[in-house]
Amino acid sequence: MVNSKKYRMCIAYDGTRYSGWQIQPTSDSIQGVIEHALQTLLKEPVRLIGAGRTDAGVHALGQVAHFTIPAHLECPRIIYALNGMLPYDIRIQELTPTLDSFHAQYGARTKEYHYHIWIEKTMNPFLRLYRYHFHDTRFQLPLLQEGIKYFIGTHDFATFANLGGSVKSSVRTIYRISLHPQEGGFRLEFEGNGFLYKMVRNIVGTLLEVSIGKKQLSAINTLLEAKDRRYAGPAAPAKGLFLVKINYSN
Amino acid sequence: MVNSKKYRMCIAYDGTRYSGWQIQPTSDSIQGVIEHALQTLLKEPVRLIGAGRTDAGVHALGQVAHFTIPAHLECPRIIYALNGMLPYDIRIQELTPTLDSFHAQYGARTKEYHYHIWIEKTMNPFLRLYRYHFHDTRFQLPLLQEGIKYFIGTHDFATFANLGGSVKSSVRTIYRISLHPQEGGFRLEFEGNGFLYKMVRNIVGTLLEVSIGKKQLSAINTLLEAKDRRYAGPAAPAKGLFLVKINYSN
Repeated sequence: MVNSKKYRMCIAYDGTRYSGWQIQPTSDSIQGVIEHALQTLLKEPVRLIGAGRTDAGVHALGQVAHFTIPAHLECPRIIYALNGMLPYDIRIQELTPTLDSFHAQYGARTKEYHYHIWIEKTMNPFLRLYRYHFHDTRFQLPLLQEGIKYFIGTHDFATFANLGGSVKSSVRTIYRISLHPQEGGFRLEFEGNGFLYKMVRNIVGTLLEVSIGKKQLSAINTLLEAKDRRYAGPAAPAKGLFLVKINYSN
Repeated sequence: MVNSKKYRMCIAYDGTRYSGWQIQPTSDSIQGVIEHALQTLLKEPVRLIGAGRTDAGVHALGQVAHFTIPAHLECPRIIYALNGMLPYDIRIQELTPTLDSFHAQYGARTKEYHYHIWIEKTMNPFLRLYRYHFHDTRFQLPLLQEGIKYFIGTHDFATFANLGGSVKSSVRTIYRISLHPQEGGFRLEFEGNGFLYKMVRNIVGTLLEVSIGKKQLSAINTLLEAKDRRYAGPAAPAKGLFLVKINYSN
């Protein structure tokens, strides 16, 4: 009988040149690159289960994944060896043994995403891959702040979900959307019990249309009630989005 | 008689994919890219004079340059148009008319450079192009802090200058080298009346050798007295270095 062990991993990555988290047959995914490094190192096939499937170009500061393997691992040595093999835009931050009952995806209680917007005229060249440059003279912060309130709480977010997800229900709860000023603009922090495919980017896209008067505040309720993706605004670009933290119950 | 006007420009750039500031016949330089954009826009040949010739891979937050042109320029419109033409890793931050007597290079009173070092084991993947990752278990901050003191003041820095500069004297004055803790490590801020070719990177390279006990503190004086580049340690990599500010008398 093989006495398998479960390990939990925390990962940061710059998503710029990847097709997203999830492994795909024809392109470079974060999951694929890490699985390949683990397999080379441990000489065992390894399947990573990630907490959140970030899209192409989306970044992560605190992605969580788990994997099961027959061998006992010396975690500090494995982190060091993995980071030596991985490209510099993917870094393993933590690796710890975990309980058999832990599941990176199903065990997640809440997830936190940040969306970063640069509203000033001239972009900082060092942040060009990590901010959405949205400079519009019609921009009104109070409109955006009002718009945020419509999204907090439990809603059917079907209008704000792109097709491509595999979930049964499109009802989710957003506990918090907060706005934090920072160099050149602000970030929106989202915390919820789960997010549908492109949901954060679709909400941000609609909030920005509201902020420049292209959509009325009252339209947000209509959009939520429509439950139809075709009515929402365009998704905000991937590069402004960061998966920041996954919170677990235990 | 043409009534020429002089303009002063402040520029930020990510030096990662450039051969440096100075125009070169066969490769992409910051100066070349901006001159080309200016020429396309103004339909006049334009020669930029930069304050500091940053090397390949060195970044700038506050490079200053001047140029002279017969036409009167509407500065805000020109900045906007230039940034529209330039690649996203080069941004014009300011453009203002200046006195005929202004000279970006010869008028500079002091220059400030920052060198950023990441000493923790695991690098932040978003800073990989802007930090020198120097993780060494022998590292001792007090040794580095002692070493700094040897470089402050007026010295002949010939040992710390690579060949390739075109200056007559290698005597320079460093007014300040200060150490500032920051995420993952620290930065060294240098302010001086001028810096020789690769001087900051050579000083940092030697300071890091001192910090891990590879060179004795007392060796620094010997090195300065030798006035011979062959005795110094290796230059620290370009990616950690930022030209931050040029200070002028007026």
